[in-house]
Amino acid sequence: MEPPAQHRRVTIVDVARHAQVSTTTVSKVLRNAYGTSPQMRAKVRQAIADLGYRPYAAARGMRGQTYTIGVMLPDIRNPFFPEIVDGLTDILWETDYQVLMAPGRNGEKAEARVTEAMIDRGMDGVVLVAPISSRTHLEHVAGIVPTVVVGRHGHSAVYDTVSDDDLTGAALVVDHLADLGHRRIAHIEHSETDPRRIAEMPNAIRAEGYRQAMRARGLEDEIDIVSTTYTQQGGYLGAQQLLARPDRPTAIFAGADIVATGVLQAVSEAGLAVPDDISIAGYDNTSFAALGPISLTSVDQAGRHIGANAAKLLLERIADRTRPTAQVKLSPTLVARRTTAPPPPA
Amino acid sequence: MEPPAQHRRVTIVDVARHAQVSTTTVSKVLRNAYGTSPQMRAKVRQAIADLGYRPYAAARGMRGQTYTIGVMLPDIRNPFFPEIVDGLTDILWETDYQVLMAPGRNGEKAEARVTEAMIDRGMDGVVLVAPISSRTHLEHVAGIVPTVVVGRHGHSAVYDTVSDDDLTGAALVVDHLADLGHRRIAHIEHSETDPRRIAEMPNAIRAEGYRQAMRARGLEDEIDIVSTTYTQQGGYLGAQQLLARPDRPTAIFAGADIVATGVLQAVSEAGLAVPDDISIAGYDNTSFAALGPISLTSVDQAGRHIGANAAKLLLERIADRTRPTAQVKLSPTLVARRTTAPPPPA
Repeated sequence: MEPPAQHRRVTIVDVARHAQVSTTTVSKVLRNAYGTSPQMRAKVRQAIADLGYRPYAAARGMRGQTYTIGVMLPDIRNPFFPEIVDGLTDILWETDYQVLMAPGRNGEKAEARVTEAMIDRGMDGVVLVAPISSRTHLEHVAGIVPTVVVGRHGHSAVYDTVSDDDLTGAALVVDHLADLGHRRIAHIEHSETDPRRIAEMPNAIRAEGYRQAMRARGLEDEIDIVSTTYTQQGGYLGAQQLLARPDRPTAIFAGADIVATGVLQAVSEAGLAVPDDISIAGYDNTSFAALGPISLTSVDQAGRHIGANAAKLLLERIADRTRPTAQVKLSPTLVARRTTAPPPPA
Repeated sequence: MEPPAQHRRVTIVDVARHAQVSTTTVSKVLRNAYGTSPQMRAKVRQAIADLGYRPYAAARGMRGQTYTIGVMLPDIRNPFFPEIVDGLTDILWETDYQVLMAPGRNGEKAEARVTEAMIDRGMDGVVLVAPISSRTHLEHVAGIVPTVVVGRHGHSAVYDTVSDDDLTGAALVVDHLADLGHRRIAHIEHSETDPRRIAEMPNAIRAEGYRQAMRARGLEDEIDIVSTTYTQQGGYLGAQQLLARPDRPTAIFAGADIVATGVLQAVSEAGLAVPDDISIAGYDNTSFAALGPISLTSVDQAGRHIGANAAKLLLERIADRTRPTAQVKLSPTLVARRTTAPPPPA
């Protein structure tokens, strides 16, 4: 039997074929499980030696690879993240790496647990999507395992970053609404109070982009930001606050499409029509935004490209840990749909 | 320094504290990385011995645990699956197990790769959500690692199953629509042609439940099933076919909420009003269905309970691999919303 080609990792399937036993038997031998005869064990061990197979666990001790890449996602309900994951797997599916995902739960403690778990399992690299951990923690992780941080700004000497230009993205929304004739344009942001990370978080940068663009359009007196979270519930509660204003906004810029879903909910419950009574715009251009009955104006930050870029950077860093870090920033575009229109007559 | 409590697993954080070094140093020693002094290595190794810490990799060789549970999800875009994942993590977050998820991509080859990767990494247990693999493959996996299969019917002697009663769920929809006065009720199913698994797949059982309920209501001549996929695109294409019928249905029962999103899209593009011209019902009762502007009638199969049940069964199986397998079936309920109403006058 031919040995497998050198560029491909030897798997237990190869070992089973070579030893002429089932993969179940190989697994049992590897796990020292019950139910294998001494003869079987000898056959499997010979095949392992012949092919140079390194079981996952053994590989680690010899500074080898585990062929595993960990992806931490803040929230698996946000329909934007599958775009990033698709971009990652487009690239990694063709390699020997297995992607394993874990929820970061938008919390520093949960993120610490997840990153520790990934390090502890000897993963070869990690992609951290929109982490909220301190930069110190991110650099700690990156000091141990090749790391790409997605959706967070700021340059690091130890990890690569991929994000979109959130400042420009927010300005695209404000300009679109102002061009339609809106002045009372409000924004719902994901609350960010930690001064150590505020300059790096996409949510904070979108809010800042909103402020800058409002000022640039001479609308500084109309700046109105509600702080909740980037969730459906956050959008719902934020919109309820805005709709209760004596002089309610004629347009709401939700910081993410998932936020816009909650805004639509609150607006609908208030008996208002979109876009006749109020315009709504989101951010992320998810498949939800494109859906006919929703047809949400949104900012396309090309999540799939973000994911693909992150995968490529990570593979390069795994191959050479000493290369200088890269900071990739992609340009967003506006997709105007039916939720935005001129404001109602005053 | 006190040793950690016996019930909790010793982590590298404990080792670092005990050795009075950073966790980075512990990780470096464990990985045999550069940049640690012989003195540091000695300190860390002493702490490892004192605390009885078993690094992940070492644990496996001694038939130990890796404290990892793998969850295979068919499609991370389907908003139903986060419900199951939430139910799983509700239970597992309180334990020392880390949940790692991988996409099964609705394909036998991809599922084989993912399950092999989970076995190869020594995971302690796996949860396979709506797998399409042959029963032979599922039993192969379960023969190696404790396994719970979610959303697929059929009893196995080697793995536990948790599903909802899809036959009843489909009947709830047909009865609701028939009670409103509909006769031309069509169904969009996820195409299932493999005779080896057809009796076990939730999609096939929903289609069968639809057929049985139609017959029970005397509507056997109106049975009309379009086979696509449980995706937004599948719903869109399925609805386009149904709307092109000379005598188009007055109600569409989509096999999943994600399918209903595509149906809404096609209906909206055809210039039809919901529910005035056509009623639409889904299955899964996702947060999307509850959304105000959508307000989709749907079947609640209690995904969170399904996930929690799966986690509990898996923990029990990890603790005792010889216990008899369980088959848990949960009862669905109908949540009627604004997308269903009496049919338009003939």
